Amino acid sequence: MGLKNRYLLRVDLSTGKVEREELPGEYLRNYLGGRVLGDVLLYNELSVGVDPLSPQNKLIFGTGPLTGTSAPGSPRYIVHSKSPLTGLYLNGLAGGYFGPELRRTGYDLVIIEGKSEKPVYLVITDEVEFRDASPAWGMNTRDTQDFIKDELNDSNIRIACIGPAGENLVLYACIVNERRGVSRGGAGAVMGSKNLKAIAVRGTKKVEVADPAAFQKAVKHALSDIASNPERSKQYPLYGSMAAMPTLHKAGMTPWRNWQDASYPGGESLFPQTWREKYVRKDVRCAPPCNIKCSKLSLSSTGPHAGALSEGIEYETEYALGACCGITEQSAVIEADALCDDYGLDTISMGVSLAFAMECYEKGIITAQDTDGQEIRFGKDNLLPRLIRDTAYRQGFGELLSRGTMRMAQVFGKGSEAFAMHVKGMELGGYDPRGAKSVALVYACGPRGGCHKAGGSGNGQSLKEIATGEARYRTEGKAALAKHTRENRVLADSAIMCIFPQMVIRDETLAELLNAATGLNLSVSDLYTICERGSNIERAFNVREGVRRSADTLPRRLLKESVKSGPNVGQVVELDTLLDDFYKLCGWDIETGIPTPARLRELGLEKIAEDMESYLQRR
Amino acid sequence: MGLKNRYLLRVDLSTGKVEREELPGEYLRNYLGGRVLGDVLLYNELSVGVDPLSPQNKLIFGTGPLTGTSAPGSPRYIVHSKSPLTGLYLNGLAGGYFGPELRRTGYDLVIIEGKSEKPVYLVITDEVEFRDASPAWGMNTRDTQDFIKDELNDSNIRIACIGPAGENLVLYACIVNERRGVSRGGAGAVMGSKNLKAIAVRGTKKVEVADPAAFQKAVKHALSDIASNPERSKQYPLYGSMAAMPTLHKAGMTPWRNWQDASYPGGESLFPQTWREKYVRKDVRCAPPCNIKCSKLSLSSTGPHAGALSEGIEYETEYALGACCGITEQSAVIEADALCDDYGLDTISMGVSLAFAMECYEKGIITAQDTDGQEIRFGKDNLLPRLIRDTAYRQGFGELLSRGTMRMAQVFGKGSEAFAMHVKGMELGGYDPRGAKSVALVYACGPRGGCHKAGGSGNGQSLKEIATGEARYRTEGKAALAKHTRENRVLADSAIMCIFPQMVIRDETLAELLNAATGLNLSVSDLYTICERGSNIERAFNVREGVRRSADTLPRRLLKESVKSGPNVGQVVELDTLLDDFYKLCGWDIETGIPTPARLRELGLEKIAEDMESYLQRR
Repeated sequence: MGLKNRYLLRVDLSTGKVEREELPGEYLRNYLGGRVLGDVLLYNELSVGVDPLSPQNKLIFGTGPLTGTSAPGSPRYIVHSKSPLTGLYLNGLAGGYFGPELRRTGYDLVIIEGKSEKPVYLVITDEVEFRDASPAWGMNTRDTQDFIKDELNDSNIRIACIGPAGENLVLYACIVNERRGVSRGGAGAVMGSKNLKAIAVRGTKKVEVADPAAFQKAVKHALSDIASNPERSKQYPLYGSMAAMPTLHKAGMTPWRNWQDASYPGGESLFPQTWREKYVRKDVRCAPPCNIKCSKLSLSSTGPHAGALSEGIEYETEYALGACCGITEQSAVIEADALCDDYGLDTISMGVSLAFAMECYEKGIITAQDTDGQEIRFGKDNLLPRLIRDTAYRQGFGELLSRGTMRMAQVFGKGSEAFAMHVKGMELGGYDPRGAKSVALVYACGPRGGCHKAGGSGNGQSLKEIATGEARYRTEGKAALAKHTRENRVLADSAIMCIFPQMVIRDETLAELLNAATGLNLSVSDLYTICERGSNIERAFNVREGVRRSADTLPRRLLKESVKSGPNVGQVVELDTLLDDFYKLCGWDIETGIPTPARLRELGLEKIAEDMESYLQRR
Repeated sequence: MGLKNRYLLRVDLSTGKVEREELPGEYLRNYLGGRVLGDVLLYNELSVGVDPLSPQNKLIFGTGPLTGTSAPGSPRYIVHSKSPLTGLYLNGLAGGYFGPELRRTGYDLVIIEGKSEKPVYLVITDEVEFRDASPAWGMNTRDTQDFIKDELNDSNIRIACIGPAGENLVLYACIVNERRGVSRGGAGAVMGSKNLKAIAVRGTKKVEVADPAAFQKAVKHALSDIASNPERSKQYPLYGSMAAMPTLHKAGMTPWRNWQDASYPGGESLFPQTWREKYVRKDVRCAPPCNIKCSKLSLSSTGPHAGALSEGIEYETEYALGACCGITEQSAVIEADALCDDYGLDTISMGVSLAFAMECYEKGIITAQDTDGQEIRFGKDNLLPRLIRDTAYRQGFGELLSRGTMRMAQVFGKGSEAFAMHVKGMELGGYDPRGAKSVALVYACGPRGGCHKAGGSGNGQSLKEIATGEARYRTEGKAALAKHTRENRVLADSAIMCIFPQMVIRDETLAELLNAATGLNLSVSDLYTICERGSNIERAFNVREGVRRSADTLPRRLLKESVKSGPNVGQVVELDTLLDDFYKLCGWDIETGIPTPARLRELGLEKIAEDMESYLQRR
């Protein structure tokens, strides 16, 4: 591809204006693509203090240098916006056919701004067309995709859309393509606020790489990296992200009953072996060229959840809608997962919000009068379908659930904030940081709030940390670990490469792939500089929106309530020590957490350095 | 096309043997195609007394001379089998893409026999392939179609499949293609009993007509027939089969609360105008070349049934799952309809079975102990999703519902048979024959039991009969009406042409179309002879299975309980008079209802005449 003739499409929904803009070559050189490129665009495009659900917010659909190529793990796209759930920086990625197809339209990025007067969907082919989405308004994500394919008479057009949750501005609504989603932080609600039901893409252009021969060679190296790690390479094809659950469970890292327990009677029924044996019907890949097939068509075919089919379950979903809700019936989790996909809801925020409501109900903070007469207790899996539907449509008690744990705690009061399991409004992923302290930094300092994807909390890194034995409880060395895994994650999201192959592909090979694709000549160290740049732009975005050290915190339960049972008994998170170390390493001001102008200038971020200077002066 | 080089495909699921057989020219000359052709094959292929759910039963997927051509209403197929619900003759038709695509494979018919050891699906392209259906076993009809398209990497392959209801041998399980079904009498259960999950077809051959120029001309005549009936031509595009509901309701012909009432407070909320205004999002056609678009994408987007999308609702569904169950909330009917399509259940038998259970519950014949603790009362629309699911999976009380009204009444006893609204086990369509007496003959003598499609009970004819004023209550002339509409229906089902256009296309035009397609030279009178032939073969099939005059009856409620309110107050059905007239006209033995050898010989059915002779002698 090289750095020339790269374009973005700018779509103003308020005016109907559509423009093609050339991407400056130095943007690609300095920010590579995908996440970091979206970071700098978002920082520059959005004014400070914009209401995330107003026409002034934007949605940036982006691809990376590897999107649409034959590189492993490359069929992905990324969306940047300001999150209605956190009011802060947001990105989100999804695998599937949409990303590669978008890239084949000839646009690396699409920036959506403004707000349409009426529901519309956007069709991007060789032309760009707005179409009336009124007939599809209210349809779930699956029906929406079928509707558009039928209307356009193109069964292979690729669609990213919202369901009722996005339309109804549920704060953790997703954008869904096929059965996968840009899940966290409410990008779907932003789309809904713009009256944009869907984007359909159909490309006719070939995705070209700068040096095809070198690229082919790099792909071979990547495949050989994967092959040389047979253990890891076996787990994901079998169990997807659920692979690590038994180890995490045994290590007391999977939170149960809204993080009250480290395990639960019968909890093993949620293990991946049970799941694979009883429910998995087929291994599916999100799209070519991936051959990991981490997605599993899971079918419940008997009992009260009979008929439910999901293309999951992810570990996070099993944690949030299962363990966290005290639900051990896996078929109920399959059903809930499928409903979340259909309605367009983030399963983590949905599950953790439900779990929070369950604990509030059991503690008498709320009663059946608040919950439409439902006894919302842990383990009551038959309640899920209605509660999830009512959340998507913001009906009855679902209206409260649709706001997420932070806002529910504000409404419920009575000390419930202490066990509202979010950071900055974002519900936590399923790794208890009291059992692996680097995770605390991932949650506390994550650019999109308490998300496990801000670094090494995900399967891979947590397992490594657990394997260190007693060292996992120490604070020493955890800042470095958190910073490295954070930037490693930015690298994956910028390439863009799925972390499942990326975890076993050497950085040198990834550099080889990226250089062959772009025509750049970046060392691994250059790449990490770009990633640190991205990480600091994201931090600066949040600083600009008011985030300071005091916001880099964790729920009281993790700081003050020590673990009551299991291997981590007695542990809490020593956050201050961890933060000091982390800020120091990142070059952020210890007192405020604002990136120092000096570090920003080292990273070549002059304008942002000036911005941060002004915030530091105002402290 | 002509009469030569026409083939059927015979598939033996027990042995895996697949054979192409040429269709004899005289078969096409004598039996035309579609329904009548299937009738004679079914009669000849099946031994007497075969268990419908045994490997000895067969399924015949058939097309007609017009299938796959440009004739209006032609995208349809027909399935013949022996019904597990009635133990008698069964046919069923469905519109959509499957029929034309099947014809393009070069086979006019596919005969399925035997039983596969394991779940399979059949792929018919230029080759015929059996594929493992185990991963899809348990999936609903929509997921099944997606699964197969994905597995075959062909998003436009056309699929007829069963859902869990068919797999679980629910006696009124459907075969579903897209979102439409071969609905009545349990063809889906027959498919399930054979471990056949689906048939996928992809044709490469052009459907040819004998005289293309004459055919083009005939199509023009058909379109001009349609255009010359602007009133009728306006109703179906707007409301589909729901068009007639207000008239039927006003005429006291739409049965409420299991046929206890002729209307119901708030019943107007089920009217098509409300439906179109509140729920219909898009007019859709089953497949080209139809342009009536009688199907309506209906979406419920708020309240307890939010998110439900159906490609309906048909009048029959509104009657069965709505009026008959005392449910006036149309969004609940949309939800129930969508679930029936997904699980593969006939909406009429499902609704009437539910209504029967509701009356039994309200009368204390069954209690909450029988119904898994559920209070199954009229109007309780929130019960439907669970009851429908449990029927499809034959769980709890659903196990009883899955057997239909006749068998439930046998289990419940206590006089419930008097209001079990079926004939020969087949639940009745939504036209009260006490308000239009020809309908009594349609139900009492219908080849597949108490079905409205055995003649003029459907929208069109009932409306004409209602328009005769007092005459509608008389028995005079009704035998002729019933016989003519019965044969007219056989004509439509043999052509094959959808009755919506067929109702306004003149018989002369249809003859023109058929002659141009086949190269035959049939007069309208010849066509009706073929139809009478079919009608008698169907009757002979049932006689062979034990049907005599005593089986040609109606539920006691229609014979002995006079209508209590509305325009038809005081009316019952005078069945004996009607039957005498009808048998006489049909040339059936008055005492037994067996077709007389004389009439059969007039129709050229020598072998069947001999068969019937033997039954007459044994009386």
